[in-house]
This record gives sequence, structure tokens and C-alpha cells, in this order.
Amino acid sequence: MAVGELVLPEFETIDGVRIGTASAGIKKPGRKDLVIFELAEGSSVAGVFTLNAFCAAPVQVSREHLQKSAPRFFLINTGNANAGTGVSGLENARQSCQAVADLAGVTASAVLPFSTGVIGEPLPMDRLLSALPAALEALSEKGWADAAAGIMTTDTKPKGATASCMINGQPVKISGIAKGAGMIRPNMATMLGFVATDAAIAQPLLKQLLSEAADASFNRITIDGDTSTNDCCMLVATGRSAEINAADHQAVEAFRTCLKQVMTQLAHTIVRDGEGATKFVTVKVEQAGCREEALEAAFTVAHSPLVKTALYASDANWGRILAAVGRAPGLENLDVSGVTVYLGDVLLVEKGGRAASYTEAAGSAVMKQAEITFRILLGRGEISETVWTCDFSHDYVTINADYRT
Amino acid sequence: MAVGELVLPEFETIDGVRIGTASAGIKKPGRKDLVIFELAEGSSVAGVFTLNAFCAAPVQVSREHLQKSAPRFFLINTGNANAGTGVSGLENARQSCQAVADLAGVTASAVLPFSTGVIGEPLPMDRLLSALPAALEALSEKGWADAAAGIMTTDTKPKGATASCMINGQPVKISGIAKGAGMIRPNMATMLGFVATDAAIAQPLLKQLLSEAADASFNRITIDGDTSTNDCCMLVATGRSAEINAADHQAVEAFRTCLKQVMTQLAHTIVRDGEGATKFVTVKVEQAGCREEALEAAFTVAHSPLVKTALYASDANWGRILAAVGRAPGLENLDVSGVTVYLGDVLLVEKGGRAASYTEAAGSAVMKQAEITFRILLGRGEISETVWTCDFSHDYVTINADYRT
Repeated sequence: MAVGELVLPEFETIDGVRIGTASAGIKKPGRKDLVIFELAEGSSVAGVFTLNAFCAAPVQVSREHLQKSAPRFFLINTGNANAGTGVSGLENARQSCQAVADLAGVTASAVLPFSTGVIGEPLPMDRLLSALPAALEALSEKGWADAAAGIMTTDTKPKGATASCMINGQPVKISGIAKGAGMIRPNMATMLGFVATDAAIAQPLLKQLLSEAADASFNRITIDGDTSTNDCCMLVATGRSAEINAADHQAVEAFRTCLKQVMTQLAHTIVRDGEGATKFVTVKVEQAGCREEALEAAFTVAHSPLVKTALYASDANWGRILAAVGRAPGLENLDVSGVTVYLGDVLLVEKGGRAASYTEAAGSAVMKQAEITFRILLGRGEISETVWTCDFSHDYVTINADYRT
Repeated sequence: MAVGELVLPEFETIDGVRIGTASAGIKKPGRKDLVIFELAEGSSVAGVFTLNAFCAAPVQVSREHLQKSAPRFFLINTGNANAGTGVSGLENARQSCQAVADLAGVTASAVLPFSTGVIGEPLPMDRLLSALPAALEALSEKGWADAAAGIMTTDTKPKGATASCMINGQPVKISGIAKGAGMIRPNMATMLGFVATDAAIAQPLLKQLLSEAADASFNRITIDGDTSTNDCCMLVATGRSAEINAADHQAVEAFRTCLKQVMTQLAHTIVRDGEGATKFVTVKVEQAGCREEALEAAFTVAHSPLVKTALYASDANWGRILAAVGRAPGLENLDVSGVTVYLGDVLLVEKGGRAASYTEAAGSAVMKQAEITFRILLGRGEISETVWTCDFSHDYVTINADYRT
């Protein structure tokens, strides 16, 4: 059960990007679990990858290939993360790139592999390889919605976002898909995100724009605080529409805004479809002394199992919010009497204690909503940061206790 | 349902300590929820307190009184934490000390207050004050077991430990009680722990011994990563038995060992009775480069909701253990190929991937046990650290979603 309406948009097609989806039967027979992106020659590609030291084999190979060649294909499978698989995992990732390369007539390093699913199982290579021709056969500019479904794991809904803007008199389109519902505390990227534009953007600027947008979107969400071994987000610019030069500040700004919009929407869909989620929660820390302490305070609240179970119960247990703020790292010498907390529009805490005007009825009314905002004012400065999270329900436990069975 | 047999020991009585328990009806009518410790004149007392910035009113008052006078009474209530209660919370804590002082003929600063329970509700002073005479009336050297029950909140079992040793030819006894089942990630102390000995130990040495023992016991456990606002652990030395001087290294060492045994046992009972716990888990990180990285790795594994739900499901999902180690802060440049993991005696991970000898049957056999040890060898040095935790079950969610209702 996702929070809110998660309906795929009518994707803008991106001239220069074709996508094919097929069934390889990697974890379960029958479902579409293999996706290939074909990128037109001349496309620029940027990527951000997990900072987890145990990064998966495909993450290592994608990083390596991205340095060597201009990517022409993304090969994505769900059902198996090819993580914690050692040397044979690396060989399997390389071999699957080689197989796509052979079929498509490119070099192996022009293929970037991505995997998501169970950690520690060997990738079933026979099944994966035998589905490649069907995926290539299916390549189409209209493949976005099928691909959004094809990369799902414990996601209950496919996730996509699309937008367009005018740059220097030319329409520029951006479309993207993402997946992820658990092991979500992205660090430089989310589980898997693939975003493409028809703008022409050289790699250094593209990389910078992607990093900024990932930092404002995927790096601001958490479901369970567990950073994945397979996090990746890729941004492709096919160059079929307007050219965006670093020196053209207006064009860069227009594109940046549009990209952040798409990526923030994707990040929000991940939280809305968080494992077992019944609430979509915005945690905004204001009046912080610096960016780091604002984020530490926001993430400590967003990760607290006690705050998350209270959210699940629609219980305005503000003591748990204060307790989480009080233990946040980096908040040295916090003057608790300067802390104010709002629950939606309701003043919950003032001077470090329950607000005189607060009533349980007012708090409960907000907590019963599916979308809730906490505003935590630290009284230490001018900096604000926002993160998004969900609650912690019985279904989270059920989903993760049953995951491998 | 606690993990293992949690039976109170036959407490050694501590000459110079009397304890009385009474019913104040603070949260629910009828249950014994008020405990008073009376300490003989001349006792030394040391305390360690929560590092949560939002520390509760009684923590602030106890710290203050401890600096002013030699404590003669501890006043403990359950059902209400008197935390996040601002100025009136401080007034209530002081007023309850004054009331005990008036009844017992001591100064108010000789009374230390402790509270545990719901955060943010005003302490019901009328009910608390009217139960004081009954608690004082009940003072007895044999009051330990009643007190262990009297300080419980969501604990399902009362918690105590007791031991004795010979020091310079004299028997020295140590007894202690503790409470806590949720909001457990002690930082300098646990929820509430009260330990007393009949040895004679001056305050500076007593403080040092308490800090060391708390660091090796309460500061090594976590249930949900949420540091409480009310953590306190007190150690009393009544001076009725052997004198222990800092210069007498043999005596200090004998006492230190005995104290650590009592406090580690108390800490373990808290984990065994963790909210919803079905497993008692020892996470031992070995071959770390320093103490900090060993602890960061151990606590990151112990806090991971994905590891904890896998434990609940008895699923040897070692990928989640590796993913947690890989995201632990402070493990810069971890060479994952040097990481080895044992599940009980079963080699699970070698060279950063699944061990060749590993079978799911062997892993499952260990995971089905109620007491499980993870050994994580980092291959970076010689340092080992151990933390203790429990799993994350449906009942954790149920208990914390219903807590205030």
C-alpha cells in the first residue's frame, strides 16, 4: 500500500533513448525482469553510485566502463543484486556486458550493468543471457512504463516522473524512472534511477547537475537507514534538443530546476512506496547553525524506530521527537529551551516542552493524515534542510522477515 | 516474551541500604510504581547520566544534588518520565525531593529523583506525594526484589544481579537492579540502574569504577538505537565492609571484576527483555584498527532494521550484515576482500563473499537458536569490541504503536 496516488505519468519520449523489457525469470518465472536502455551515439552520460564499501559487482563494472567509453547501453536486471558475490560476480557482470555488446555490435565497455534484488546469490547467467535478444527486439522510444515495472523489487508500484521546459527557444524534455522500497538511505544516489534528457550537455556539467539534483532528492530520503550496496542513478543527455553550456547560466538554471523537479518526484515516490509505509513524512529542520547539524537532526528523527512506530500509530508522541533531536550527533551544546516543534500547523513544543496551547485533539487530527510535516526549529541559526521518510509498520517487519522465502 | 530464563537472583542484602516500594497509581492504579532507597550516612555515591540534550528534569536535579550533598535517598517513580516538561517539571522534581527530605529529616539535596515512563506528561504530584509515607514505611534491607518490579515500564520481567567477592579477607557484596526495554541505546548509562556494595570506596575511585563498568556493560547494548532522556546508573558504596583504596591494585581489580559481572548481567537482562525480542544477539567485531571503528561497525550491524528483521525470521541473510558493515561510519578504505564473518561457529563470509564451505542448512541451524553470535573479522588490526542486541519483531511495532494508549 503506497501513500497517495502513485500513477505513472505519460512519459515524454526522449529522442535518442529506446528501452526494451523482457522476461528472464531471474527470481520468479514469467515476470518482466530485464531492461535494456539503448542510448544514441554521441550521448553524454553521468552517474552517481553508492558509497557502501560492499558495493555490488555491477556498480564496480559500471564505474569502470563509464571511465573507458561513452555508454551506449544500460543492462538492468531485478531479482538478484549480484552483490557480495566476489570474483565470480564481477565475471558475470562483465560477461553479460560482453553478450549485449556482441548482439549490438559495440564494445563491452559501452555497456553498463545494473542489478537489484537479493544479495549474495550468484546471477543465473543462462536465464539472463537467453533473454537478451527479446529485450533488444523490444527496444522502443515508448518503453519507459514497461521499464519502470521491469526494475521493481519489493516496490508495489512502478515509479516515474517526466517534465519539460523551454531552453533558448527549444523544448527540452526529461524523463526518469526509479525503483526502491527497502534498504533505502541513499548515499550519493538511490537504489536505481535512470533519467534521460534530449538536451545537449557535456559530461562535466552533466555530472555536476546530476550530483546537485541527487543531493537535493535521493540523498534526502530514508526508509530504514540501510544504505544499499547497489545504489546508482544515471543521467543521460542525448543531445537531440537544445545545447546547454556551462557559461549560459540561464539555460543551466532552467534545466537544473526541471531536473530537480523530476528527481525529487522520483525520490518522493520511493518514500511513498516504502516497505509497509502508511505515512509520507516531511521532516524539516530550521534555524540550524549549519547544513550538517540540520541534516543530522532531520535524519536522526527520520530514522528513530520510536518516532516511526508512533507515526504508524498516528500518535503525536512528541517526546520521542525531542528525544531523537536530543541524541542527534553534531548538536553540541544544544539549548533545549530554544527548541520549537510544529506538527503540520499545530505548535507542539515551545521552549523545549509541550506548548501551552497544544491539545491532543489538535495533534491527533494532524497525525491521522497520510501526509505529515514536522518542523523542528533549533534556534541556533538560519539554515534549513528537509528530508523525507515514512513510518514503520507491521508490514515492514513482515516484508523483511519474509524477503528470501 | 524475554529471551532465556530471566529469574531474579536471591539478592545479597547490602548493609547500609534499605529499600521501600509503594503504589502511587502514577499511570495505572494498583501497581507498585514508587521506590525509595535509603542509604546509610557516610555512603559514597557515583552516577552516570544520559548524554541526550533533552535530559529529563530528574536527571538535571540528580546531577545538581549529587554535586551539593552526600545522597541519603533515591526517589524513583515509573509511569511518567518527567521529561520534556520544562520549568514545571523541574519544580515537580525538586518538590518531591523536598517532601522526602521533610519526612526523613534530611536536606532536600540529599534526595536524588529518578523517573521513567511516558515523556511529556506532567508528573501527577498529588498521587506521588501521598504514597511517600508508605514507601518509607516499607524500607527494608530485603526490598531489592520488590524494587526491581517497582521500576519496570514495558519490561516484561524484573531485572537484578548480585555477586560477592573476598577483598583483603573480608566478604564484599554487590547487588543491583535495572529496568529498560525500549528507547535503549545507552550513552553513559542505561535507562535506570541502581547498584550498591557494602565496600568502602571513596567517591573519585567509585566514579571511575562505575564509568568503566558502565562502558563495558550498559554502553554496549542497543535495542532500537534510541538514547533515552532519562538514562541513569547509580553506584552506592555504604562502607560497611572492606575498604578499597585506589593504591591497593589487587583489591581494586577484584572489585572491578565483580562489579563488571553484575552490571554486564543487568545489561544483558535488558536486551533479553527488549521490546518484542525473540533473539539475544552478540555482535563481536574483531581485527579492527581501533576501538572506535570496531564499535561503529558493531553498532551499525546491531541497529540495522534489515539485519534485525532477518534475525526475527531466523534468516541467515548475510548480505544484510555485509551491507551494514559497508555503510558503517569510520571504516574508511575498508578492503572488503579482507572481511570474514562467522555465524556461531559457521563460516559465513570469507574474502568479502559467501564462504565456499557455507550451506544454508548450517546457517539456518544457527539462526533458529534463541542466542546467536556474529563474529565480524575486519582484517585491519588487533582490536575487538562486543555489543549486544536483540531482533526486531512484530511485537516491537505493536508495543510502540500502542504505548500511550
